Amino acid sequence: MSDAQTWTVGVTGATGYAGGEVCRLLAGHPNLRLAGVHANSSAGRRLGELQPHLLPFADMVVGPSDADSLAGYDVVVLALPHGESAVIAGQLPAETLVIDCGADHRLTDPEAWSRWYGGVHAGTWPYGLPELPGQRAKLEDAKRIAVPGCYPTSVTLALAPALAAGLVEPEVVVVAASGTSGAGKSAKPHLLGSEVMGSVSAYGVGGVHRHTPEMIQNLSQAAGAPVSVSFTPTLVPMSRGILATCSAKLTHGTDAQAARAAYEKAYADEPFVHLLPEGQWPTTAAVLGANTVQLQVAVDPDAGRLIVVAAVDNLTKGTGGAAIQCANLALGLPETTGLPLIGVAP
Amino acid sequence: MSDAQTWTVGVTGATGYAGGEVCRLLAGHPNLRLAGVHANSSAGRRLGELQPHLLPFADMVVGPSDADSLAGYDVVVLALPHGESAVIAGQLPAETLVIDCGADHRLTDPEAWSRWYGGVHAGTWPYGLPELPGQRAKLEDAKRIAVPGCYPTSVTLALAPALAAGLVEPEVVVVAASGTSGAGKSAKPHLLGSEVMGSVSAYGVGGVHRHTPEMIQNLSQAAGAPVSVSFTPTLVPMSRGILATCSAKLTHGTDAQAARAAYEKAYADEPFVHLLPEGQWPTTAAVLGANTVQLQVAVDPDAGRLIVVAAVDNLTKGTGGAAIQCANLALGLPETTGLPLIGVAP
Amino acid sequence: MSDAQTWTVGVTGATGYAGGEVCRLLAGHPNLRLAGVHANSSAGRRLGELQPHLLPFADMVVGPSDADSLAGYDVVVLALPHGESAVIAGQLPAETLVIDCGADHRLTDPEAWSRWYGGVHAGTWPYGLPELPGQRAKLEDAKRIAVPGCYPTSVTLALAPALAAGLVEPEVVVVAASGTSGAGKSAKPHLLGSEVMGSVSAYGVGGVHRHTPEMIQNLSQAAGAPVSVSFTPTLVPMSRGILATCSAKLTHGTDAQAARAAYEKAYADEPFVHLLPEGQWPTTAAVLGANTVQLQVAVDPDAGRLIVVAAVDNLTKGTGGAAIQCANLALGLPETTGLPLIGVAP
Amino acid sequence: MSDAQTWTVGVTGATGYAGGEVCRLLAGHPNLRLAGVHANSSAGRRLGELQPHLLPFADMVVGPSDADSLAGYDVVVLALPHGESAVIAGQLPAETLVIDCGADHRLTDPEAWSRWYGGVHAGTWPYGLPELPGQRAKLEDAKRIAVPGCYPTSVTLALAPALAAGLVEPEVVVVAASGTSGAGKSAKPHLLGSEVMGSVSAYGVGGVHRHTPEMIQNLSQAAGAPVSVSFTPTLVPMSRGILATCSAKLTHGTDAQAARAAYEKAYADEPFVHLLPEGQWPTTAAVLGANTVQLQVAVDPDAGRLIVVAAVDNLTKGTGGAAIQCANLALGLPETTGLPLIGVAP
Repeated sequence: MSDAQTWTVGVTGATGYAGGEVCRLLAGHPNLRLAGVHANSSAGRRLGELQPHLLPFADMVVGPSDADSLAGYDVVVLALPHGESAVIAGQLPAETLVIDCGADHRLTDPEAWSRWYGGVHAGTWPYGLPELPGQRAKLEDAKRIAVPGCYPTSVTLALAPALAAGLVEPEVVVVAASGTSGAGKSAKPHLLGSEVMGSVSAYGVGGVHRHTPEMIQNLSQAAGAPVSVSFTPTLVPMSRGILATCSAKLTHGTDAQAARAAYEKAYADEPFVHLLPEGQWPTTAAVLGANTVQLQVAVDPDAGRLIVVAAVDNLTKGTGGAAIQCANLALGLPETTGLPLIGVAP
Repeated sequence: MSDAQTWTVGVTGATGYAGGEVCRLLAGHPNLRLAGVHANSSAGRRLGELQPHLLPFADMVVGPSDADSLAGYDVVVLALPHGESAVIAGQLPAETLVIDCGADHRLTDPEAWSRWYGGVHAGTWPYGLPELPGQRAKLEDAKRIAVPGCYPTSVTLALAPALAAGLVEPEVVVVAASGTSGAGKSAKPHLLGSEVMGSVSAYGVGGVHRHTPEMIQNLSQAAGAPVSVSFTPTLVPMSRGILATCSAKLTHGTDAQAARAAYEKAYADEPFVHLLPEGQWPTTAAVLGANTVQLQVAVDPDAGRLIVVAAVDNLTKGTGGAAIQCANLALGLPETTGLPLIGVAP
Repeated sequence: MSDAQTWTVGVTGATGYAGGEVCRLLAGHPNLRLAGVHANSSAGRRLGELQPHLLPFADMVVGPSDADSLAGYDVVVLALPHGESAVIAGQLPAETLVIDCGADHRLTDPEAWSRWYGGVHAGTWPYGLPELPGQRAKLEDAKRIAVPGCYPTSVTLALAPALAAGLVEPEVVVVAASGTSGAGKSAKPHLLGSEVMGSVSAYGVGGVHRHTPEMIQNLSQAAGAPVSVSFTPTLVPMSRGILATCSAKLTHGTDAQAARAAYEKAYADEPFVHLLPEGQWPTTAAVLGANTVQLQVAVDPDAGRLIVVAAVDNLTKGTGGAAIQCANLALGLPETTGLPLIGVAP
Repeated sequence: MSDAQTWTVGVTGATGYAGGEVCRLLAGHPNLRLAGVHANSSAGRRLGELQPHLLPFADMVVGPSDADSLAGYDVVVLALPHGESAVIAGQLPAETLVIDCGADHRLTDPEAWSRWYGGVHAGTWPYGLPELPGQRAKLEDAKRIAVPGCYPTSVTLALAPALAAGLVEPEVVVVAASGTSGAGKSAKPHLLGSEVMGSVSAYGVGGVHRHTPEMIQNLSQAAGAPVSVSFTPTLVPMSRGILATCSAKLTHGTDAQAARAAYEKAYADEPFVHLLPEGQWPTTAAVLGANTVQLQVAVDPDAGRLIVVAAVDNLTKGTGGAAIQCANLALGLPETTGLPLIGVAP
């Protein structure tokens, strides 16, 4: 491995959860080397104070988060609140590989951007979900990649095969349970441990969560026609993980066998997406810290619906792992390089 | 209070979670006195060994769970696995008030019983959900009452007003998150703390959970027409609580105002069902240990669906509190007697 | 009950955890009526927004936290950060019963106050731990009462009998696990759910926690001689509860029987302190929401130490319940009035 | 890497938590290849059913756990209940490297074994804690290695430097908080999620936990004189992790600087043991899934004690990671090969 090619990586937002996860994964990557950590605040502090789990990087000093400071890396990962990535990205050299974990460059429709995020859309980048049909090729040699949101990743992978195969009608209902790390590291009262332990709550109900247009975009692409999405996120008492329960009305004639066959076919060659054996249901623990998605499908003949359940780690396959997966593709590395397939359980 | 009428209560299954909750609530009831605790196993042991939180009852000795042992109480609460209640209930005196927390007497359709539970249906008892239109009167003076299942309680209260008012189409989708106490106290590997902490999982997917026919029965009664239910339960890392996210397609013309008005009207006089102010969403912590339900409604105009979220404590309003509420009604006591309205939070 | 005497209670700090717990317990109290809620911030908001579990009080509007606003109640409960209680208390009428849940009036030694809290000591009030020998009488007819800290409550009740009986040497070691509500409701990053779930940490190590001098004061009073305390608090992933593991070297000749006898004698008549039967160990779940303490003692002959483990709910017997217990005593009510003995488990 | 030497590894007890952790770590090891999984029960089932997180090994079929079935591997890891390892180990070829994660071969004193475990001692193997002074050399070229218990690992690393340097008296007090995975995967009622979530409890109080003699053995070796240990384990609501709070009386003249210096010196060259910078305290989250130990020391001049807090993952550095670390040493590989230094947080 000593003569393997390596690229330097700078991560900004490294003191947050998504940025921290990118750093964690880089520690196990043979070709990518974490060369600098940056953040909006905390500049000048040791990373170890802020991310005590990142032991090998504990003595790195947090640098400022601006284009000048980030310009020297081969790869820059942006793990910033939406609105901030675009400003920095615009000033980075064209030859730098820039991976944006934020929302700024995911949507293709500028009007959708303005409606959901406000302001002017900064432009669309290749969307970093290689498992979406036709998408992988767009990421090879890309210099700018928009990492999907965590909910859209789970929901898209759960429903795209059924919609693409015409097994269900294009009106889907999603209820997703998320760990609290999805809400980030900012200290808000409703995210206090005392509030979230022993409690489940819903939020962003009624189609107002900003990940909704991204799901619609992906699923409509898969279906080849407009898809409506009813999306309800819930907050559950754990740090990591998303369990998305997705359903849609069966089209005439779809049975369990056909449904299963469509998923087997769709994901036969995908290294990170695993349709579980019949009778086994996903748990978020099984994918904790791994870049994998576990899926199961069921047909409810009485209700006439297909139900698909997907488990992902919102910080790994949902963000930081996806960032590495995309970097691998863009750099011509094997897609799975440095990415764990095994969850940390129990 | 010294001259208030009191009734003696015997609880069988008192060493389990539902039975324990009935005992807990009886400690605060001015007219009902826990006079004996019984269980299938554990007979002869101190209750304090098995239910260390029930301090005032710690020295009660667990008696056997058979009709002879239970015959002497004014009120008998059965908190037993399905199939066991019916056998005992058949041998208890007709004048004893018998409250069954199990499933044996909930369904009205013997065929549905046989399909979902197997064997021969033991008969239907008045259904202990006073908040269901027309149901309260059936519980006054009843001598036999079937306490609803925990999921059906939350889902019925969430959706009945919309279906009754014709606001939505009779095809509903429910995803419910439940704490692990809903699965009871039997030691199964997938319920170990190591397995459930930090993890969310789905189970009984595809319409196979036994609470499904009960929901269909209730919601069809509310709608006055058959309702289909797609129900997916999930297990979340907490002991108590259910958060049910329920949705259905809006019928033509339903807007947020109409939806809210229907729920305000339906529950204006219900002491235990609370529609939260606009903008506030239910959390299970807020109802922990309380006999209350917190609800919120939203209309998603893009997806064309009504979404209702309900939070209950599966052991309180979902089982043990409902049992007391029903006993209050059957004994002619004020319905709220001895029942906490306040959750234990944080 | 209609002709029972009632007193009005005003609670300030009602939007925090301790204040909220006082409100919760008042809802079940036959003689105390929550007449007003106050807070430093949040004035003008509905209590239901901030404390959604306090359903019967949801429509109360939060008033300001100053002496003028609090002067009209029969009883005022102060649940404020240290330093703030003293200012208000000094301006309240002498005939108002004032219960301070904060630290301002607990210590008897002004120098200790200055060392641990800084500034000038506001004076010492009767210390609200009736179970401390000789203490109960000081609370009857008191008009000012200082509620103990949550850690000192658990540790004092765990060790006072052994020290008073000379069973152990006056050098004690305490390691206590606390739920996060003990740290209050302020949004600090290390208290985020994402940080505390799945993690245990120590803090305030090396004798620097402010509850240390209070423990020393209590235990020295019990021992009749100076006691040294090595105290290490740890934060565990739950909202409520303290488990204090306390130990000290056995004096010559102390065996398990003698130790047990001392505790049986000390707490024989205490309604809230329960020495568990041999072989059963305390769990915080068993006292959740209850005003009780569960204790167990063991002698380790090899190590030559007595070990006592105590479980309390930091918000109930540790703060809010103790406040009510003290108010009962000061008002001449039975000490247990309105206080739950049963924990909410599982 | 393709021409690196590789050894085959068979793991028995692979369906449990410790065995599963060994398998998880083997997936990331360049020189060790998981060649077979075995278990007492479950033979014939797919590993994926029982350990759904071990995705790359999901299709391996569990083989029986007997010497014949295990004889063909280069390395055998025994992750079995105590008493079972010795029987199998006795029948394995002498040239096979056998790593025992159980207790059978840890104690040097046959009488201590009989007192604590019952029966006849099977003999002592080299003790797999390379960080214990003088111990590393005994593991190089060893063919039989006894992996330490999880509690003894944390406690020994926490206290050995102070005892070796004479900073403290040889009477130590330990209170350790452990996640539930330490109790294994067997379905016992007190380990149910409903029981452990939201609760902390003590167990094995009074010096009766079987890890006590192992701690005494290690610490006495470090001190060069007999050490007494008062050990209280507590169970906290998380799956993984141990936080050990250890203290002892300071000998004359020890101050904070001297204490810190002793630990800095002791662990300067240890890759897995990290003394945190002053002011930062260990959290178990920071070492989750990592083979690291985080330590901090404090001196309490008032109480006259040294306090050391250590965090380890009971399944990684506490068991499975230690097994790999020992195998690395015995096989002549770099000690850190394949072992994660980074915890999975948040």
